[in-house]
Amino acid sequence: MVIEPEKISVGFIGLGVMGKSMAGHVLKAGYEVHVYTRTKKTAEELVSSGAVWEESVTALSTKSRIIITMVGYPSDVEAVYFGEDGILAHAEKGTLVVDMTTSSPDLAVKIHEKASRLGIDALDAPVSGGDLGARNATLSIMAGGEKAAFDKALPLFEIMGKNIVLQGKPGAGQHTKMANQIAIAAGMVAVCESIAYAKKAGLDPETVLKSIGAGAAASWSLNNLGARMIAGNFEPGFYVKHFIKDMKIAVESSKRLGLQTPGLDLALSLYEKLARTGHGDKGTQALFKMFE
Amino acid sequence: MVIEPEKISVGFIGLGVMGKSMAGHVLKAGYEVHVYTRTKKTAEELVSSGAVWEESVTALSTKSRIIITMVGYPSDVEAVYFGEDGILAHAEKGTLVVDMTTSSPDLAVKIHEKASRLGIDALDAPVSGGDLGARNATLSIMAGGEKAAFDKALPLFEIMGKNIVLQGKPGAGQHTKMANQIAIAAGMVAVCESIAYAKKAGLDPETVLKSIGAGAAASWSLNNLGARMIAGNFEPGFYVKHFIKDMKIAVESSKRLGLQTPGLDLALSLYEKLARTGHGDKGTQALFKMFE
Repeated sequence: MVIEPEKISVGFIGLGVMGKSMAGHVLKAGYEVHVYTRTKKTAEELVSSGAVWEESVTALSTKSRIIITMVGYPSDVEAVYFGEDGILAHAEKGTLVVDMTTSSPDLAVKIHEKASRLGIDALDAPVSGGDLGARNATLSIMAGGEKAAFDKALPLFEIMGKNIVLQGKPGAGQHTKMANQIAIAAGMVAVCESIAYAKKAGLDPETVLKSIGAGAAASWSLNNLGARMIAGNFEPGFYVKHFIKDMKIAVESSKRLGLQTPGLDLALSLYEKLARTGHGDKGTQALFKMFE
Repeated sequence: MVIEPEKISVGFIGLGVMGKSMAGHVLKAGYEVHVYTRTKKTAEELVSSGAVWEESVTALSTKSRIIITMVGYPSDVEAVYFGEDGILAHAEKGTLVVDMTTSSPDLAVKIHEKASRLGIDALDAPVSGGDLGARNATLSIMAGGEKAAFDKALPLFEIMGKNIVLQGKPGAGQHTKMANQIAIAAGMVAVCESIAYAKKAGLDPETVLKSIGAGAAASWSLNNLGARMIAGNFEPGFYVKHFIKDMKIAVESSKRLGLQTPGLDLALSLYEKLARTGHGDKGTQALFKMFE
C-alpha cells in the first residue's frame, strides 16, 4: 500500500519552540497540517509554508484525524482536552489524540479514560532532547497507551524523533519522562558542586573535565552543561522555569507512589531559589550560580 | 636514547586489588619492581613473576628510584610517608615518590613540602576506573606536582593508564579526584531515585533505560550501575566503604574551601546509613536499597 500522507490531516496545538519545529517536520513530510496556538503570530511561518490556520481548538479538532498537543503546563493540557471548546468535546470518533507535553501521568490516564469512552484513541508521548532535538528531528519519544494507537502514531513519531519507545499503558510515557527528569535533577546538583569545587580548589575546570568527563563521573550534564557553566554561558537550552514545572510534577507523582526523593527535593528547592532571584528564564545550567 | 626500564627500580607499597594489577603491568614492562604490602601473601603472585619482596617500607625505600604508594586511608598514607620507618626518612635524594591513593589534597601538599626539603620529587596521582581499569591498564590518572616530576613518572603512568593529565601544582591530582567523586555522589542519588520511581510507577525499568539512557539524563552511573540495580546485582565494582572514605575527604576539603555541598552531604549521609545496615562491602549501586 502506498502511504499518502496528504490524506491524513494532522492538527497541532501549541507552537512553542518545540511544537513549531515538530509541526514543521510533519508539514515537510507531506501531511495536511492544521495549526492552532494562543498567539496567532507564532504560526505565521508554518502557515506561509502551507499549514492551515484554525481559529480555535474546536475548529482544529473537527478537521484533524490525528491531534498532537504540545502546550505548557498540566493546567493547559487539562483546558485543551477537557474544556467546553476542547478536543474531547469536538473530535470525531476514531480520532487519535497525542499529548506530547511533559505533563502529569495521572492526567494522561484521565484523558485516555475519557477518550476511550468517546471512541477516541489517546497516547501520552512526551519527549526529551530539547529545542535542538526538535529542530533536528532527533527527539527521544516515550509513549504510553495501546499498541494499536502507538502504531498509528509511529509514522509521525518517526518524522519528529529517533529514539521512539512504547513504555506501556496510558501514563507510562509521562512516568518515563518523570524518571528522566528525576535522573537529571540531583545530577545537576552534583555537576554544579563538582565544577564549583574545581574552581575553588584553584584548578582549571576545563582541564578537570578532561580527567573526569570520560569515566565513572561522566554524564551528559557534566560534559555539556558543565562546560557551559565553566564558560559562564547561562543561555537557555532548557529553561529553569520549565524544569521546575517538571520537577513539581515528579515530586507530586513520587509522593503518590510512596517514594522518598531527597535528591529531587533538594534540586527543586535550589532551582526555586534560583528562580526567585530572577533566573527562571535562564538555562538549567544556571543552577551553578547557587554554588559560585 | 634507548630506554632501559630494567635499570630503573620501581617500588610499590600497597598491593590491594588496584595496586596489584598496577604493579603487575610495570613488572611486565620490564622494570625491576620491589614490593611491600601489609599482608605478605598478597605479594606471592607478583614475586613468583619476578618482583622482589621487601620486608619493610624502609628496605623498599632505600632500594627504589621511584616509589609508588597505593594504600587505603589518608592515615595509611601519613604513616607510610611520615613514619619513623617511612619513605621520607629513608628514600635517597633524587627519588621520585608518587602517591596514587585517593587521599587528602592537604596531605599531598604536606608530602610534597617535606619531600622537597629532602631533595625528593613528589607527585599526587590518584586514579579512577576501578579494578577493571587497573586490570586493563585503562585508568584515568590525575596528577599534581611539578612538570619535571610528572615527565619522569609519565612512562610508568602510560603503562598503567590511558587518560593521563597533569592537573596542576601539588594537591591538584587529589583535588581533581575529589571533583570526580563529588560529581558521582549526588548523581548516584539521582540514579537510584529515577530507577526506584520507574519501578514504583509500574514501568519496566530496562525499557525505561532505552528511553532515558542516551539523552540529557544519560550518565555512566545510570547506564552501568542503574542496570546493575535493576538486575539486583550489588556485587562490588567500587566498595561502599571506600566511596564513604572519599566523600568524607571531599566534605572536609569543601568545608575548608568554603563551599556548600548539599548534594554531596545528602549522598554521604545516605551511604553512611547504608553502611550502618551492613552493606559497606557492597558496590556503590547498593545505594538503591535505600529507595526500594
